[in-house]
Amino acid sequence: MTKQSGMALALQQAHLAAANGEVPVGAVLLDSTGKVLAQAGNRVEELHDPSAHAEMLVMRKAVQQRQGQKLADCTLFVSLEPCPMCAAAMAHFRLGRVVFGAYDAKGGGVEHGARLPHRPETLHRMEVIGGVREREAAEMLRAFFQKLRCR
Amino acid sequence: MTKQSGMALALQQAHLAAANGEVPVGAVLLDSTGKVLAQAGNRVEELHDPSAHAEMLVMRKAVQQRQGQKLADCTLFVSLEPCPMCAAAMAHFRLGRVVFGAYDAKGGGVEHGARLPHRPETLHRMEVIGGVREREAAEMLRAFFQKLRCR
Repeated sequence: MTKQSGMALALQQAHLAAANGEVPVGAVLLDSTGKVLAQAGNRVEELHDPSAHAEMLVMRKAVQQRQGQKLADCTLFVSLEPCPMCAAAMAHFRLGRVVFGAYDAKGGGVEHGARLPHRPETLHRMEVIGGVREREAAEMLRAFFQKLRCR
Repeated sequence: MTKQSGMALALQQAHLAAANGEVPVGAVLLDSTGKVLAQAGNRVEELHDPSAHAEMLVMRKAVQQRQGQKLADCTLFVSLEPCPMCAAAMAHFRLGRVVFGAYDAKGGGVEHGARLPHRPETLHRMEVIGGVREREAAEMLRAFFQKLRCR
């Protein structure tokens, strides 16, 4: 699967999240053959769980399904740059690669702020690719927050 | 409840975790009246979930029980300095105060590494108290890992 089409799936999950009143961030996790292991949007409101970010949900689901096997062979597509919680979790899950859409200068923890995957004490190294279909992902978030403000 | 007795509960959860073959870290979450909202040890192995750290489990359980009400009025006692994932989650959960036992120079994200609660971009501010019953908490971890190495 190309980066473009992997991100298309993540954006689809972000759209579904927005329709449920969640901040529109979506994620999909693929193994090395391109098989979809899990996909989800944010479910923070629905689950009353501030940690129920799309990235956390797909990584947890996949490792549970694989009986504890971690994600070194996997790519996580996510529509927004992960926050520090998710960025640190990606190392705990031994994620092979993360591909994200929009950059998040305020809340991001991958290429902004603590930049966790790049810190010397983060022993797990993963491939990081940002800015894939960036405009679509950023526009979805912008539209969502503008609508919130106009209520 | 004093810091000492709050930490005693967290250490008890750490002991139970060790007995289940988990890395011995325990956590307990109290509201401002001293009522225990949730307590847990690490359940990473049991749940096949690398994010099932004691801190994450108690914060998620408490907010779910309170139907989404966050934790500004709460104190989290945890036997080990939280990792960056848990430290970032504490801000998402709007935790009021964290009291931890042993310092973790390699894996910690509160007073070591990214020091997330102290970073300028972490907008939520919480009280941080480290080193409570530090020797007991550190000794439990040391004994656990020594036993692992001798197998």
